[in-house]
Amino acid sequence: MNQPHPFDAAIHLEPQGEGRWRGHTHEAYGNMVGPFGGATAAAALAAVLAHPARQGEPIALTVNFAGPVAQGPFDIEATAARTNRSTQHWSVQMRQGADVVVTATAVLATRRETWSSVEAGFPQAPPAEAIARTPPLDRVRWTSAYDMRFVQGPLQFAAAPPTGEQDSVSLLWVRDEPPRVLDFISLAALCDVFFPRLFVKRGSWVPIGTVSFTVYFHADAATLAAIGTRHLLAHARAQQFRNGYFDQSAELWGPGGELLAVTHQIVYYKE
Amino acid sequence: MNQPHPFDAAIHLEPQGEGRWRGHTHEAYGNMVGPFGGATAAAALAAVLAHPARQGEPIALTVNFAGPVAQGPFDIEATAARTNRSTQHWSVQMRQGADVVVTATAVLATRRETWSSVEAGFPQAPPAEAIARTPPLDRVRWTSAYDMRFVQGPLQFAAAPPTGEQDSVSLLWVRDEPPRVLDFISLAALCDVFFPRLFVKRGSWVPIGTVSFTVYFHADAATLAAIGTRHLLAHARAQQFRNGYFDQSAELWGPGGELLAVTHQIVYYKE
Repeated sequence: MNQPHPFDAAIHLEPQGEGRWRGHTHEAYGNMVGPFGGATAAAALAAVLAHPARQGEPIALTVNFAGPVAQGPFDIEATAARTNRSTQHWSVQMRQGADVVVTATAVLATRRETWSSVEAGFPQAPPAEAIARTPPLDRVRWTSAYDMRFVQGPLQFAAAPPTGEQDSVSLLWVRDEPPRVLDFISLAALCDVFFPRLFVKRGSWVPIGTVSFTVYFHADAATLAAIGTRHLLAHARAQQFRNGYFDQSAELWGPGGELLAVTHQIVYYKE
Repeated sequence: MNQPHPFDAAIHLEPQGEGRWRGHTHEAYGNMVGPFGGATAAAALAAVLAHPARQGEPIALTVNFAGPVAQGPFDIEATAARTNRSTQHWSVQMRQGADVVVTATAVLATRRETWSSVEAGFPQAPPAEAIARTPPLDRVRWTSAYDMRFVQGPLQFAAAPPTGEQDSVSLLWVRDEPPRVLDFISLAALCDVFFPRLFVKRGSWVPIGTVSFTVYFHADAATLAAIGTRHLLAHARAQQFRNGYFDQSAELWGPGGELLAVTHQIVYYKE
């Protein structure tokens, strides 16, 4: 019997009754402590999309990491706060035991064709095939679950001393490893694949934790499926690091120049 | 007896028991239909900050506009989902009658001094005093509640034909009108002061509605109070308009070049 893709195992949810599911963190998406935040966010979205009352496709997802997620089982409750003709608003909580570990909101919508225009620029980059995969980091298991090929701002813990002079920009090609056909849930996880900009900026490791994470989806399911297992071009940067919190933003582009998602997060750092 | 500032009237909440408040939309913050979304978001944050269990200052706020808000009373319920040593996570709902009109989450934190660095650039602009106030729009009452002085990308409904060629960038000085000392709640409202980028991009009016709105706060209360009633420099742009939804991002700077907040939203448009 074929094993499921590790990502599908990581987001697998067992129904526990109306709007309630139980999932389990997966070792392939382990972080230094607990699971990769992108896998946690993906599970929250998976619960919404699995709900029988679900209408439409994801437009916006905000996931707040309320406390550390431990390796092990977790319970998700997803509630439709409001259903309109073309939009639907969801509230989600994830718990481990009695502790809320995630609060989230999601907006779904039924989209239709309108006047469209992209203003952000597709970054210049050599094709993914022309760049070697960056070796994953032993200390961070989930980096093995992605094929990342850096054009700029490499994945590293420590290189240059913390001069505060370099910028925090990364540009990389990225896809699931092993390859998996793109969908909304894997795209949500890919939106958290950016190493904390603090590490890029300072060239050194500092304890950090994402506090709040938002994704705006610009693509429909057919567009994602058509991209299949090809790499996405991902472009990330920070805006400000100040007194324990920094924010970062990124765009994820299809290989043909389609802007699939924009994502933002604010991250705690210790010092 | 002095009248309160209209903004304080717009965010005034009457306690209704543990974690529950009743507010009322204010005509000074009227939009074409219903109230200005920034005033609604501000009321949601005001409920969290008024809660006796509140700890810390705002770090992140996400407000989802689940349905149209009518002029009139509204009820807010704010619940602390989790309180940690230095952070606190809130879930908020606003209702009118039985209808949920807003879902929101907020993260508060106790901040302390750390290594800090700003990467985004303070935009070049003439001082606020050198620019005339843009006349408010008769059709949009809330534009009278702000003193807006545009450097680029003016406030307008229709000017150029919709060529899709111009960019969607606006740069403006903005403060409350009449002046009011800056705080987190007014800053949250100011983060929604940007005209929909679609109007700037296309030079024409189209029915729109913000669906989800996020603010990351980079300043503490003392920094905001020290800015007082001076103008903030606000810089906004869209990234993509696609099949009924576009996203926009903005930064709000203090007049001395302090990055106070970054904000993002995704907006429905009809055609």
